[in-house]
Amino acid sequence: MKTITVNASRSYPIYVGTELLANIGDYIPQVKSSYTIAIVSDSNVWPIYGNTVCASLKDRGYDFVHYVLPAGEESKNSEQYIRILNFLAENSITRGDLLIALGGGVVGDITGFAAATYLRGVPYIQVPTSLLAMVDSSVGGKTAIDLPAGKNLVGAFNQPAMVLCDISALNSLPEDIFTDGCAEVIKYGILYDAQLFSHLQTFGLQFDREYVITRCIELKRDVVMEDEFDTGARQMLNLGHTVGHSIEKCSNYSLSHGKAVAIGIAVIAKASASNGFCVSTIYDDIIGVLNRFTLPCSTSLSADLLAENALSDKKRFGGTINLVLPRKIGKCALHPIPVGELKSFFEAGL
Amino acid sequence: MKTITVNASRSYPIYVGTELLANIGDYIPQVKSSYTIAIVSDSNVWPIYGNTVCASLKDRGYDFVHYVLPAGEESKNSEQYIRILNFLAENSITRGDLLIALGGGVVGDITGFAAATYLRGVPYIQVPTSLLAMVDSSVGGKTAIDLPAGKNLVGAFNQPAMVLCDISALNSLPEDIFTDGCAEVIKYGILYDAQLFSHLQTFGLQFDREYVITRCIELKRDVVMEDEFDTGARQMLNLGHTVGHSIEKCSNYSLSHGKAVAIGIAVIAKASASNGFCVSTIYDDIIGVLNRFTLPCSTSLSADLLAENALSDKKRFGGTINLVLPRKIGKCALHPIPVGELKSFFEAGL
Repeated sequence: MKTITVNASRSYPIYVGTELLANIGDYIPQVKSSYTIAIVSDSNVWPIYGNTVCASLKDRGYDFVHYVLPAGEESKNSEQYIRILNFLAENSITRGDLLIALGGGVVGDITGFAAATYLRGVPYIQVPTSLLAMVDSSVGGKTAIDLPAGKNLVGAFNQPAMVLCDISALNSLPEDIFTDGCAEVIKYGILYDAQLFSHLQTFGLQFDREYVITRCIELKRDVVMEDEFDTGARQMLNLGHTVGHSIEKCSNYSLSHGKAVAIGIAVIAKASASNGFCVSTIYDDIIGVLNRFTLPCSTSLSADLLAENALSDKKRFGGTINLVLPRKIGKCALHPIPVGELKSFFEAGL
Repeated sequence: MKTITVNASRSYPIYVGTELLANIGDYIPQVKSSYTIAIVSDSNVWPIYGNTVCASLKDRGYDFVHYVLPAGEESKNSEQYIRILNFLAENSITRGDLLIALGGGVVGDITGFAAATYLRGVPYIQVPTSLLAMVDSSVGGKTAIDLPAGKNLVGAFNQPAMVLCDISALNSLPEDIFTDGCAEVIKYGILYDAQLFSHLQTFGLQFDREYVITRCIELKRDVVMEDEFDTGARQMLNLGHTVGHSIEKCSNYSLSHGKAVAIGIAVIAKASASNGFCVSTIYDDIIGVLNRFTLPCSTSLSADLLAENALSDKKRFGGTINLVLPRKIGKCALHPIPVGELKSFFEAGL
C-alpha cells in the first residue's frame, strides 16, 4: 500500500492499495470525532460494495445511514444535492459526524459539496471506486454540482479528511468506464511527466495500476498544494477540459467526461501545433496514445458551437479565457485568449 | 460616517453612515475587478431602493442585472437558492464579476451563500437595509439557507468584500421590523457591553442610531476576528438563539426571528437565574429592556417541544448542546449540556 500526504488547508492522507473497502472501518478512527456515518453512493456501486463496507463499519461498532443516487452524470444536479442535504438533516447528522462518498466522480463531487455546506461543513472521506475518481476528482478538494447552463458551475473547495483508493475496485469497473478514466491519466503525462507518458505508450491499457495511480495522485497533490484555490498553477489541470466540457454539454452529457476530455486534448493539441505552440510530432504522440487506449480523437461539432459553449465555463475571467496548451510531452503552458478569438483558435484544432 | 475594518480570512471595510445607497457606485471601485454587477434584492426593498442604486451604478458606468426574491423568511430556501444560481449562470456572471445583496437578513444570507458557491466563489457586497441585517447577519461571513428540518442548516463561511450600512434606510423600515432588529442589539449589550445596555435602558427605541449600530458591529467584528469559523467564542452570539430558533420553527416561521430571539433571551435568562448561573435581578433587568422595546418575553410552547426542536440545531455536537447563559450584564458563559437534560433546563425558563 502507498500513502500520499496532502498538505493543503487541511492535511490528509491518501491510501492506494487493495483490501481498503473490506477494512474501511479500521481507517475511520484516524478521522476525528465521528459518531454516525452517512454514506452516499450510487445505484451501480452500492449493490457491489455496500454490504462489504457496511460489514466493516458494523464490525467496528459504527452507526451508519446511506443514500443511493441514480448512477450517472445527470445525478450531479441541484435536485439531488438538496435531497442529500435533507437526508442528512432528517437523520440528524451533526458537525461531529462523518460523511463517506463511495463511488465515482459524481458521488465524490456532490457528496463533497454537501459536506462543505451542510451545517457549513462536516468532515468527509472520499472512497473513489472508478479510475477517474481515483486519479482526479477525489484528490484536491474541488467539489461541485452541475447547472443546466454548464458543468461544475456550483461548488466549494473542500478537502476531504482522508482518501481511500482501493485499486481492486477497478476490477468491477466496466471496460468502457475504465477507459474513460485513462484520458485523465494521459493528461498527467502530457502535463508533467514524460516518463509516465512513455509507460502509457508502452503498456496501453495494461499499465501498472499502483505505479500509475500513485504517480497521478502525487502529481495532482503537488499542484493542489501549490494552488489550492485555483488561481494559477491549478488551471493547468484543465488541459483538454475547456473543449471537453463544451463537447459534453453539446452532447447533452450523453458522451462521457473521459471521452470528451480525450477529444478535448486532441483538439487543443492540434490547435497548439497549428498555432505554433508545439511541433507537430507532439500532436502525433498524443494521438498515438489516445488511439492505443481506444479513446476518441475528433468531433463533428463546429468551432462555433464549441466556442459558444466554452464561454459559460467558469474558467472565464471577464473578457478572456485561459487555455492550456501542450508545448512538449511533460510541459504545457497557460495561454489567455480573448473570447472573440476562441472560435478561430478552436478551428485550427478541428 | 464611521468605518470599521474586519481582519478575517479576508479583510474588508464596513461603512456606517447616510447617503451610502445613493452613492453606491462610488464605493464599488474599492472592490477588485468587477465587470458586471448582479444585484439580489427582495420585493419589499427593490421598489424602494432599486432605482436609487441603479442610477448610481449607471452613473459610474457599471453594467448590472437584478434578481428579486419574494420578501420574507420563507424565501431563504433551497429552491430560491438554485434559482439565483441559475440566474447568475444565465447572465454569464464570471469570477471577475460582483454580487450585491441589497436587503435584510434573508437577502444577505442567501446571496452570500450563492456568492460562496457559484463558480466556487465570486466576490459580493452586503448592503443591509434592516437593523437586524446591519448589526448581525451582514457582518462576519455566515451565510445560509433553511431546510424544512430547520433554519440555517446549509451554508458557508464567506466574508463579503465590503459592507455598506446606510442608516437612513432604517427610516423606511416598518416599526415592527425595526423592533425585531432591536432583539439582536439588546443581545450585544447582555453579552459584552453594560454601557450599551444602559444606553438602551435609558433611550429605548429612541437610541442613538450611529452609536449603537457602530458599537454592535464592532462587538461582532471582535468575536468574528477571534473565531471566524465558529468553533469557540463565536458560539456566544447564539445567546437566545437555541430557544429562538426552536420557537421560530414551532411557529412555522410565522413569528419573526427578532421576536423569537427576544423570547429566547428571556427564557434562557430565567433558566440561567433558576439554575443559579446569575442573580434574579439580571433576569429582571433583561425583561425590563425587552419590555421597553415592546418585545415579547414568554411563550406558550412546552419545554418538551422546545427541546425537541432545538436538537435539530446545528450547534449540537454529538450528545451535547452548547447553551449561552447570562452571568451578569456584559458577561455570559458557554454551558455544554447533555441533550437529555435540555428539557428540564428549558422548563426552568418557562
